[in-house]
Amino acid sequence: MFTDGYDVIVVGGGHAGAEAAAAAANMGSRTLLVTMNLQTIGQMSCNPAMGGIAKGQIVREIDALGGYSGIITDRSAIQFKMLNKSKGPAMWSPRAQNDRMRFAEEWRLALEGTPNCDFYQDMVKSLLVGNGRVIGVRTSLGLDIKAKAVVLTNGTFLNGLIHIGEKQLGGGRAGEKASTGITEQLVDFGFDSGRMKTGTPPRVDGRSLNYEVMIPQPGDERPEKFSYLQTPVLSNQRDCHMTHTTKLVHDLLREGFDRSPMFNGRIKSIGPRYCPSIEDKIHRFADKDSHQIFVEPEGWNTVEVYVNGFSTSLPEDVQYKALKSVKGFENVKFFRPGYAIEYDYFPPTQLKHTLETKLVENLYFAGQINGTTGYEEAASQGLMAGINAHLKINEEEPFILQRDEAYIGVLIDDLITKGTEEPYRMFTSRAEYRTLLRQDNADLRLTPKGYAIGLAKEERLKRMEEKQRKSDAFVNFFRETSVRPEEINPILADLDSSLVKQSDKMFKVFSRPKVTIDHMLQLETVSGFVEDNELGRDVLEQAEIQVKYSGYIEKEKNNADKLQRLEGIKIPENFDYSKLKSLSFEAREKLNAIQPVTIAQASRVSGVNPSDISVLLVYLGR
Amino acid sequence: MFTDGYDVIVVGGGHAGAEAAAAAANMGSRTLLVTMNLQTIGQMSCNPAMGGIAKGQIVREIDALGGYSGIITDRSAIQFKMLNKSKGPAMWSPRAQNDRMRFAEEWRLALEGTPNCDFYQDMVKSLLVGNGRVIGVRTSLGLDIKAKAVVLTNGTFLNGLIHIGEKQLGGGRAGEKASTGITEQLVDFGFDSGRMKTGTPPRVDGRSLNYEVMIPQPGDERPEKFSYLQTPVLSNQRDCHMTHTTKLVHDLLREGFDRSPMFNGRIKSIGPRYCPSIEDKIHRFADKDSHQIFVEPEGWNTVEVYVNGFSTSLPEDVQYKALKSVKGFENVKFFRPGYAIEYDYFPPTQLKHTLETKLVENLYFAGQINGTTGYEEAASQGLMAGINAHLKINEEEPFILQRDEAYIGVLIDDLITKGTEEPYRMFTSRAEYRTLLRQDNADLRLTPKGYAIGLAKEERLKRMEEKQRKSDAFVNFFRETSVRPEEINPILADLDSSLVKQSDKMFKVFSRPKVTIDHMLQLETVSGFVEDNELGRDVLEQAEIQVKYSGYIEKEKNNADKLQRLEGIKIPENFDYSKLKSLSFEAREKLNAIQPVTIAQASRVSGVNPSDISVLLVYLGR
Ligand SMILES: Cc1cc2nc3c(=O)[nH]c(=O)nc-3n(C[C@H](O)[C@H](O)[C@H](O)COP(=O)(O)OP(=O)(O)OC[C@H]3O[C@@H](n4cnc5c(N)ncnc54)[C@H](O)[C@@H]3O)c2cc1C
Ligand SMILES: Cc1cc2nc3c(=O)[nH]c(=O)nc-3n(C[C@H](O)[C@H](O)[C@H](O)COP(=O)(O)OP(=O)(O)OC[C@H]3O[C@@H](n4cnc5c(N)ncnc54)[C@H](O)[C@@H]3O)c2cc1C
Repeated sequence: MFTDGYDVIVVGGGHAGAEAAAAAANMGSRTLLVTMNLQTIGQMSCNPAMGGIAKGQIVREIDALGGYSGIITDRSAIQFKMLNKSKGPAMWSPRAQNDRMRFAEEWRLALEGTPNCDFYQDMVKSLLVGNGRVIGVRTSLGLDIKAKAVVLTNGTFLNGLIHIGEKQLGGGRAGEKASTGITEQLVDFGFDSGRMKTGTPPRVDGRSLNYEVMIPQPGDERPEKFSYLQTPVLSNQRDCHMTHTTKLVHDLLREGFDRSPMFNGRIKSIGPRYCPSIEDKIHRFADKDSHQIFVEPEGWNTVEVYVNGFSTSLPEDVQYKALKSVKGFENVKFFRPGYAIEYDYFPPTQLKHTLETKLVENLYFAGQINGTTGYEEAASQGLMAGINAHLKINEEEPFILQRDEAYIGVLIDDLITKGTEEPYRMFTSRAEYRTLLRQDNADLRLTPKGYAIGLAKEERLKRMEEKQRKSDAFVNFFRETSVRPEEINPILADLDSSLVKQSDKMFKVFSRPKVTIDHMLQLETVSGFVEDNELGRDVLEQAEIQVKYSGYIEKEKNNADKLQRLEGIKIPENFDYSKLKSLSFEAREKLNAIQPVTIAQASRVSGVNPSDISVLLVYLGR
Repeated sequence: MFTDGYDVIVVGGGHAGAEAAAAAANMGSRTLLVTMNLQTIGQMSCNPAMGGIAKGQIVREIDALGGYSGIITDRSAIQFKMLNKSKGPAMWSPRAQNDRMRFAEEWRLALEGTPNCDFYQDMVKSLLVGNGRVIGVRTSLGLDIKAKAVVLTNGTFLNGLIHIGEKQLGGGRAGEKASTGITEQLVDFGFDSGRMKTGTPPRVDGRSLNYEVMIPQPGDERPEKFSYLQTPVLSNQRDCHMTHTTKLVHDLLREGFDRSPMFNGRIKSIGPRYCPSIEDKIHRFADKDSHQIFVEPEGWNTVEVYVNGFSTSLPEDVQYKALKSVKGFENVKFFRPGYAIEYDYFPPTQLKHTLETKLVENLYFAGQINGTTGYEEAASQGLMAGINAHLKINEEEPFILQRDEAYIGVLIDDLITKGTEEPYRMFTSRAEYRTLLRQDNADLRLTPKGYAIGLAKEERLKRMEEKQRKSDAFVNFFRETSVRPEEINPILADLDSSLVKQSDKMFKVFSRPKVTIDHMLQLETVSGFVEDNELGRDVLEQAEIQVKYSGYIEKEKNNADKLQRLEGIKIPENFDYSKLKSLSFEAREKLNAIQPVTIAQASRVSGVNPSDISVLLVYLGR
């Protein structure tokens, strides 16, 4: 049927697959998205929310490059919050609750609106490979579809096995089939595969909950949004609610531990450390008598509710008994119990920075298949794999983001350099230069790059350039304009900040910790400048950060530049470390396996010591 | 988890299950809908359309009784047509194209908005039965849920087996799991089960079609709607398109016949005669060189398109090659191929008029499981099963519709009396009294009944009573008001109808075939009456039909009354026909199996002759 073949085939329509297909197609590749069910494209398997700490930054980065996740999130959001607003701007993290159905529908429509993107519903059973290069896929119907590159984004579906108490069911997600065949074939090719697990809480009927006794968790009063483009801002929002587990709840859960697949040895694989199941939490933190539970609506209209914080694979009767004892859940009715799922992943050290596999040319892996967890991590990998698949088959330079350029750079470098033995999730602490990698400047950092490779559209670049121009001008205005004591002192007095004796540059006053942009706007010259130049909220925020954090930012830039020097020292391809006998044995082994591209990357490989780096530098003549 | 148990459990969330759950819950039963996937409630498995000939009447009947299908259809319609408008009003049949996603979403939200209806996602593996009575269900997680009555609506899922060319996959629908266990258990209980098949066409990418060379099929200029309540009327609509197969297309299809599961014996079960596959059509009508194909959009925004008339289970390469040769499909891209599915059904002669099984008390079957095909047939059975399950457990009289009262009555009586060996679909020709069973008067026929059993709400009754009152008044007005020659003759002249010489009752003039309500409205007295009495379009139509078809309607009413007499002669329960040696052997056997409730029903059992009926009448002392 597909006699012409495609440039790029993307296998899987989850967050990784959807971004991969969009990116490849938007860059001009004739792209086919093959997925098991066209009605589950962009499905949120677990909680109906996007963003959060470090993850929100990733969504902004995806958007800045020209990906879709930010736009889809804005179009389907039911609540928005900027987390960590009380901390420094490096920590500010946007997060949205979403309408699960709308989110998936918007993804589907966005892809349908992408000219080069075709669709096919079927399960891919194996890859077509010739001369060490992928040349297509074979589906469960026995259909062969040719392609120049293939991106695998199978998520939790590869030999997926669902656990609830002592029950086990094959499946890639509740009610969906597992995918078989691919792991086995890749292992035959010489790939290492491993097993991970993740879990999800019960879904319950909102009509059966007593919200009166819970604590409302409203969205921000002035909600922002994810995309740098003109997406809608929420004019009304749905509340979440908070409640708590108690000692009684924990005791009731413990009663089921002997039937728990987590504790009776049935599940051997490792789950996400930072999204632990409730049984994990009460087991690991035995002294804590209470854990938070967030009650999240699944959409604008549906009564279905997501019980965030209560992920579990205990038998469903235990889940029920325990949840009934949580405040507000006395009359709870289940839509479905929580469950855990085990699935195959491929240790990502088998990949290059482009997410191409080292073993099979033009084959890319993205998303949960690489041992990550989370929609945002998956989506960003999909985007990068889609971009690089397109570039590779067009014989263009690969597109790689450095650790000081994007969380996406940190994510991929971590994965391929250090690998991961447990589901990898992004944190701000994983980034050396998080003051640079903020949510507010992802466009300034990345849109020019996205535009250069032909992904971000001109409109995006124009908006970003205008923002840059205006905020630079505004910062300059602060640098150049003086303020007189009689103007600023009333404000400073209000803030309990020491008064100034003589006129001073605004920049200096504004740099004081307590002084915010809103205070500055009380000055007529400032508000006049804002009005005359039509500066938007994004420009004000950008200028404020540039003024108040310029010291930190400069320092990190310098550090990053130093790193850049090490990143600049390339190691030849297929370098044979075994011949460098002065390297430690472990370093030789690990470096041979990982084949780092630069000295900087080599220094991040676990088991490689500074002395090994010195040996390498000497050998490379530095 | 479900310690309290339920009044009614409905297994399956298709059209039958959704109506059953809504009906039982709305009548006051604590109802649980257990379905394999809560995201596929109200899924349209095949074409995105509701209604059509005889089926549209059924949807109106469901609505009139207080079911939801009409409301859901109106809320998700993208096009509306009144079919057969050129024929008599008994043939007028409403039909809507629907947005597939919206349709399912509206069903889900409607059920969530139904207070007594709870939800649970799981697969039912078996029934709990005690003392010949159903007492609950057991799920695939091993959960036992108690209930006083159970309605099974498993659709095409029981041991579902999907065929495409030489490939076979287990599944209840493309991409969904089959249901196992229930058939086997029921057969153990002594139920007969059989196997049927149905099929669906490929879904294709609307962006790849050339609509220029197809014939647009717009909706009605003045679209109506299904529900008698205040649902939205379409203000804009999407077009369908028509194209044709050719001899070349047929030849290309024939090339695949040796690999067709229909022709190589792999599929043995019988498919729907009136929704044949394209291979069936060219096989059975070998002399026809062309068949119509209707190109139907799947929704407001999606590019997915349903290729109505091209249902097929040929190998997908054959499907593709042939469809590419259809005008407008030269560059077609597939979303997924067509397929056939085989599934278990239970010959419906094992049921009572209430849809309760004869073998297991309080167990009801509704929908495709009874050997029917079509959403409307399924939905109406679900409604009736839900109603009767509620009535039974509350020890109230069963709710049975007679053949002269509703298509639903015809449907169920046909099923349980005659059984069916091929997928049963409703036609106007199946109804003896189709002039009575019109789409325009389903409310007049059924809303009082729906209200009496506590399903239809008061608002519905009030609207119906007002319509009745107003149309009666309008008809009376025509009977009583005279029209003068100088008023009416210009109109008659225009119509080429003979002129009147003297004043005459309007009723008489209006009865003439060519004179329509719109002509009558040209008379000032008539339009004045309409204005003064605020008569809506529905009242005008109703009055027109009452005037113009009063003769036919009266005649059928008389015939129906005669039948009623036979329906009135009850046969004792568990009547032993074997002792009536003067009955033919076949009649004894069939009557013992079916156990008809009345002489009239006995007369409809296949193999029972008028002479057998005479014997029975004599025996019963008539
Ligand atoms: C039960 C559960 C709990 C989770 N809990 C958390 C959590 O607590 N925190 C968190 O951050 N993340 C959690 N996740 C993970 C989160 O859902 C994933 O990280 C994210 O969805 C991964 O995106 P993906 O695109 O890699 O894969 P997925 O979203 O899983 O999508 C995979 C896609 O590939 C398709 N597919 C698979 N195999 C084939 C094939 N052979 N042929 C064709 N199509 C195929 C599938 O149909 C699907 O569309 C959970 C996931 C599950 C299932
Ligand atoms: C491929 C295909 C082609 C068709 N073609 C036509 C056609 O051309 N013309 C036509 O008129 N009709 C056609 N139909 C039939 C039409 O779809 C059905 O008549 C209608 O959907 C039947 O409604 P239902 O409620 O009986 O079952 P379905 O709509 O099939 O719904 C069954 C429901 O039960 C659930 N379920 C099943 N088993 C279990 C279990 N053990 N536990 C829990 N839940 C369960 C399923 O998840 C599903 O929600 C076709 C159907 C299919 C699948």
